[in-house]
Amino acid sequence: MRVGIPVEARPAERRVAGLPETVTTLIGAGLAVDVQAGAGRHAHASDAAYRAAGANTIPDHPAGQSDVVVSVQPPTVEQATALREGDITISFLQPNAERELVDVLVANKVTAFSLDLLPRVTRAQSVDALSSQALVAGYRAVVEAVNRLPKFLPMFTTAAGTIPPAKVLVLGAGVAGLQAIATARRLGAVVEAYDVRAAARDEVRSLGARFLELDLETQQGVYAEAQSETFLERQRELIAERVAASDVVISTAAIPGRKAPVLVTTDMLKAMAPGSVVVDLAAESGGNVTASSPGEETWVGEVLVYGARNMPSSMPVHASRLYARNVANLLMMMTKDGRVEPDLTDEVLAGCCLTHAGELRRELP
Amino acid sequence: MRVGIPVEARPAERRVAGLPETVTTLIGAGLAVDVQAGAGRHAHASDAAYRAAGANTIPDHPAGQSDVVVSVQPPTVEQATALREGDITISFLQPNAERELVDVLVANKVTAFSLDLLPRVTRAQSVDALSSQALVAGYRAVVEAVNRLPKFLPMFTTAAGTIPPAKVLVLGAGVAGLQAIATARRLGAVVEAYDVRAAARDEVRSLGARFLELDLETQQGVYAEAQSETFLERQRELIAERVAASDVVISTAAIPGRKAPVLVTTDMLKAMAPGSVVVDLAAESGGNVTASSPGEETWVGEVLVYGARNMPSSMPVHASRLYARNVANLLMMMTKDGRVEPDLTDEVLAGCCLTHAGELRRELP
Repeated sequence: MRVGIPVEARPAERRVAGLPETVTTLIGAGLAVDVQAGAGRHAHASDAAYRAAGANTIPDHPAGQSDVVVSVQPPTVEQATALREGDITISFLQPNAERELVDVLVANKVTAFSLDLLPRVTRAQSVDALSSQALVAGYRAVVEAVNRLPKFLPMFTTAAGTIPPAKVLVLGAGVAGLQAIATARRLGAVVEAYDVRAAARDEVRSLGARFLELDLETQQGVYAEAQSETFLERQRELIAERVAASDVVISTAAIPGRKAPVLVTTDMLKAMAPGSVVVDLAAESGGNVTASSPGEETWVGEVLVYGARNMPSSMPVHASRLYARNVANLLMMMTKDGRVEPDLTDEVLAGCCLTHAGELRRELP
Repeated sequence: MRVGIPVEARPAERRVAGLPETVTTLIGAGLAVDVQAGAGRHAHASDAAYRAAGANTIPDHPAGQSDVVVSVQPPTVEQATALREGDITISFLQPNAERELVDVLVANKVTAFSLDLLPRVTRAQSVDALSSQALVAGYRAVVEAVNRLPKFLPMFTTAAGTIPPAKVLVLGAGVAGLQAIATARRLGAVVEAYDVRAAARDEVRSLGARFLELDLETQQGVYAEAQSETFLERQRELIAERVAASDVVISTAAIPGRKAPVLVTTDMLKAMAPGSVVVDLAAESGGNVTASSPGEETWVGEVLVYGARNMPSSMPVHASRLYARNVANLLMMMTKDGRVEPDLTDEVLAGCCLTHAGELRRELP
């Protein structure tokens, strides 16, 4: 059976779903690999490098030619139309945002796996592309902030006096938030972090950051929007106070499948020191910062707000390496004797299978 | 006596020679301070903040109004023409590049100090603006590289496998080079460094980097251009080999008052892995990298070369803070009882005084 790696369909996407190293893995499992010419361009993987790993270069999108098509962004409706009954696609596919595409996949009896739907179980870790890409996003958020900050992050003691370390506030301590904390700490910043999940406290502290706590008993593990008005009021007060004291704020609070919670208001930004920088990693899902807009820099007084857009794509070599390995690991879970035949009774595969044999396997809202 | 802080004359200059905190210092020494409206704009110091520190806001350039004019870039010829006999200017003034300006300063009997000419003696450390700005440049060089690199700097061990740490090569281990080494090390890179001065070895090693050595006895303390052809040949071989093995190269080798040595050729760049990044801090003084051009990104195959231009200016808050303190310290060396009266028998002041009482105090080539 043949696995196809296309040029990504969306123009701003610089990652690729397979690299020469994962081509080697797939060929070792008895599969053949088709790579669309130029697929690895932004990830600096040449057609020649794919061929050296044993892949076949093809001029067009592999839909209709390869049995399995792996990509970062989901296929377009046109590409999906070319998929045949029983063909498999693997990508980040958010069904709520792609109704027409889902209809085509169902109609064509395509088996579609979405890495957005992966169950959070131990066996899925090596396949967990949301986490691997969040790692990249958290690191990049700090790079984007540091690049825009007119100040140092580390402390300096010089003959002309001392420069104190920058103060960095990270909102949300999931994978991206923890990586942002770790990166800012590496660079010598004083870091504090907030998360509604009290369980994040030990992880935050283990990275050398201060964990902010509300003086309020709250229900553990429940997202902010689900909390009481008193809780939200206290949270606003705490965040407002800490935002005002920070040189950099990095917000990473996302609620899967829903609009991101607003945590930082324009009034809070106005209390920051001039020259401060805010990076909103949640800008694409509505924003944690009211002033942020995806891919844009917005000045609020003398505070610069950067709304992140597809951060992992800005580091295509390593983001692709992690993603391609996640995809190869998922393929290995469904491949036996050179055939890709997913067992949909498997917890991981069932969890991320969106369409199969003409059926939509998830309820859409 | 009055000290004037102008808006910088060159459009790309974002630093400022005085900040509210140094205004306080000057006023404490019995001086008055005039600040041109908007002077601190890029450094996020408002006119109101200067006034709160006791400064007087003026609408125009202070030349002809203040007795002492402090700036980052030298005054323009027009501004210098407005300076009166006995007025003082302090700036980075490279006399070889500013012949017409020097003529005006001599003709007008202005006392001009250049921070480019400061003697490298212990007493001058608190005034050493070349070093304080090189510190900023070295840090920023890493930020510029990391921002353009499609890879992580740190090592990551993830469920999808390990990402090895990036390899960073720093050429030149002066103040900027050492700071680049320190910053890349903070971010988890594996760093190696080269400098013609064997004396740099211990400093490089103390920062956790490997010091590259030629298997050749060389005359210590002599710059590369002054060395033998055999030395240069060995140096080229060593650098070519290490450039090819690096993900990031940061070159910082400058020879005061002369063209920077070419260390990295286009052929060397072609041997680097695709996606590698080179930052040439010496781009403005001729370049350590043949392909670099100041302020430009140049692709050599799949290697991105960034020619730095005025790096300190890209971090105006802290670059200005260090520079303003250097300038205030220099002013304090020449101020007694509220009067700025430089004693030109003082080693530090004599060293950096370029023109005085109608005389040019340096031989120009």
